[in-house]
Amino acid sequence: MTDIRTQMDEIGRNAREASRQVARADSGVKNSALEAIAAAIEASRPALLAANEKDMAAGRTSGLDAALLDRLALTDARIAGMTEGLRQIAALPDPVGNISDMNYLPSGIQVGKMRVPLGVVGIIYESRPNVTVDAAGLCLKSGNAAILRGGKEAIHSNQALAHAIQTGLEKAGLPAAAVQVIETTDRAVVGEMITMPDYVDVIIPRGGKGLIERISEEARVPVIKHLDGICHVYIDDDADPEKALQIAFNAKTHRYGVCNAMETLLIAEGIAAQLLPELAKMYREVGVELRGCETSCKVITDCIAALPEDWDTEYLAPVLSIRVVKDLDEAMDHICAHSSAHTETIVTENFSRARRFLREVDSSSVMVNASTRFADGFEYGLGAEIGISTDKFHARGPVGLEGLTSQKYVVLGDGHIRN
Amino acid sequence: MTDIRTQMDEIGRNAREASRQVARADSGVKNSALEAIAAAIEASRPALLAANEKDMAAGRTSGLDAALLDRLALTDARIAGMTEGLRQIAALPDPVGNISDMNYLPSGIQVGKMRVPLGVVGIIYESRPNVTVDAAGLCLKSGNAAILRGGKEAIHSNQALAHAIQTGLEKAGLPAAAVQVIETTDRAVVGEMITMPDYVDVIIPRGGKGLIERISEEARVPVIKHLDGICHVYIDDDADPEKALQIAFNAKTHRYGVCNAMETLLIAEGIAAQLLPELAKMYREVGVELRGCETSCKVITDCIAALPEDWDTEYLAPVLSIRVVKDLDEAMDHICAHSSAHTETIVTENFSRARRFLREVDSSSVMVNASTRFADGFEYGLGAEIGISTDKFHARGPVGLEGLTSQKYVVLGDGHIRN
Repeated sequence: MTDIRTQMDEIGRNAREASRQVARADSGVKNSALEAIAAAIEASRPALLAANEKDMAAGRTSGLDAALLDRLALTDARIAGMTEGLRQIAALPDPVGNISDMNYLPSGIQVGKMRVPLGVVGIIYESRPNVTVDAAGLCLKSGNAAILRGGKEAIHSNQALAHAIQTGLEKAGLPAAAVQVIETTDRAVVGEMITMPDYVDVIIPRGGKGLIERISEEARVPVIKHLDGICHVYIDDDADPEKALQIAFNAKTHRYGVCNAMETLLIAEGIAAQLLPELAKMYREVGVELRGCETSCKVITDCIAALPEDWDTEYLAPVLSIRVVKDLDEAMDHICAHSSAHTETIVTENFSRARRFLREVDSSSVMVNASTRFADGFEYGLGAEIGISTDKFHARGPVGLEGLTSQKYVVLGDGHIRN
Repeated sequence: MTDIRTQMDEIGRNAREASRQVARADSGVKNSALEAIAAAIEASRPALLAANEKDMAAGRTSGLDAALLDRLALTDARIAGMTEGLRQIAALPDPVGNISDMNYLPSGIQVGKMRVPLGVVGIIYESRPNVTVDAAGLCLKSGNAAILRGGKEAIHSNQALAHAIQTGLEKAGLPAAAVQVIETTDRAVVGEMITMPDYVDVIIPRGGKGLIERISEEARVPVIKHLDGICHVYIDDDADPEKALQIAFNAKTHRYGVCNAMETLLIAEGIAAQLLPELAKMYREVGVELRGCETSCKVITDCIAALPEDWDTEYLAPVLSIRVVKDLDEAMDHICAHSSAHTETIVTENFSRARRFLREVDSSSVMVNASTRFADGFEYGLGAEIGISTDKFHARGPVGLEGLTSQKYVVLGDGHIRN
């Protein structure tokens, strides 16, 4: 424990030190570092695949399940995906240094806001080696130093990637400590990382709910996170039936295991009898299990009665809960009570109800006539995404480069003093 | 303890419930509530003064010092200040609902950001009754519910103000729980308030450093705060001498006990011999004690040798530490090591050094040729200020209405689904 603390202390101190240099690096320098890292990854492809094979072999021996092994695996295509990602980040505009809202004030001073890096970003994630590269790229471009702690199953892959990252940083003249990949697999590392406010400005946990809950509970620094994605589609009386069917089907079935998939369908009683049988047929054809309220079960054959806990469950699976509601107010009350504040959609042609839904639903993304599946940094035009935040503080919704920055006030005067 | 917990739980639940109504209230409703509160305060002036007299009498009996008694006292002028403050807040633009950056994306959806209230704001403060009214006004206007916990010395004054606030809320048709003033003086209240993430979205502590440190340490919700104001003025070689003298004098002597007063003067060695004797004379005339580095002590007569801890001390008093530095880099290194990230100023006519200082100094306000005393919500044109944040997360620098809000994504489509 003491060893880990000493070690993490040094990592933190080095990150803080490096963060000053990354913060003032020009966009050109940061972009050339991203390009150099991409090149170094390409150059070390054989070593990378060999290191990954070590992790895969250990994973198979220790009995990792197929889904985890799939996430862990590196292939030529995945390596190409990583380097392409780095080049996309290089192509994005640099948020750092942007000055906005610069105005002259009555005293004669000019006041504006300059966008600045957060400082040191700590990222704790599972055994997906591509996150190492993504996270390094996003933190660098946004002018932050990064401390990365991946899952122990990916340790050899991450070490090989860390080596390529170091090579790229060195080539661009940025300090090696700008991106540190932690090589100790001891879990105590996480406990230290989240309790070093002097050295870490924000923690971004990515992974299972248990991990994120534990980190949020114990962290002594701000955390950007989302725990659940219990997303709702509300089909209003005045919905266009075809749009309603398409959106409700897409939001549930486009991908099941993602946080922006719909988990509960709310439908106004005025339109339920018209749409639910058809929708149920569409879901049945792709094998989605339906769990409905009493009214839904009357309208749909083969509908299982929903239990109270269904309204609070993120299935991440081909399962959907359905509730018939009286009107918009009942739908919004249900959302307020059960949503995880991730993403909700209303399907309606009624202007006033759309307007109310947009204003009153308190989620990180609120939509009209669009699938919840659009809640995504790429779809929103952020160019990249380090995660999705369902908190209200600081970044909310998909978090791109701007979410990894803050703003400071800049004041220009000409010898101005207070009277 | 259990009683306090039950009580705070109910207050929290009521605040959360009320926050939904405040969030969707139109600007007109919120403004009429602010006006009605101002009118109710004016109407209850005799009761208010009587309640305050009870607090003052108790304060005198318990031996409160003169400064605390002064802060506690209500006068006709102070009551007028409160009601004027409320009317100024009513006159400010409403940040809630503002939509920005609305763009069409390649998929055809429109994506933008809508400004939304944080939800429930908890404010913990000392025995200044005007904070009760200010805080209530700012939270209301920004669409938040507020839980206010003032110092026990002001309990009668705060109860009387709470009564006026309730009257105003009721008149405007807003729920009484939109602003709750806690009437229990038990200190356990604070411990509960800062550990109710389900009911409180952010805590703003205002008061002594000890209180703020304890709250930051123990809070389980985000905290907007600043601990210290160790502000620096750096006089560069290329400073205009007259501007340098004026700014250095104003930043220290305009008011001593404020967080944006200069505590350390840094001066380039190339200009120190020219300016320091004159500056020292100006300071001496108003009784400012000078504590200098070795070089300063050679240039200035009557300069006390500074101890290492002087560079990390917020005097809040007529005391100034002075250090002669080699150049801009040494000045910025000193600031990085000793600043509390509140406010720093460079005095220079050199464009390139001003540009570097603005970019590289990592404080909530960074200035060129202006007194640190300008770091203030009113001077920045925010119209009002609930506090100053020296954190990097969320709000930074003076926090006005916008700092009490967040943004959510809004997405408009026409039946769009993900492919």
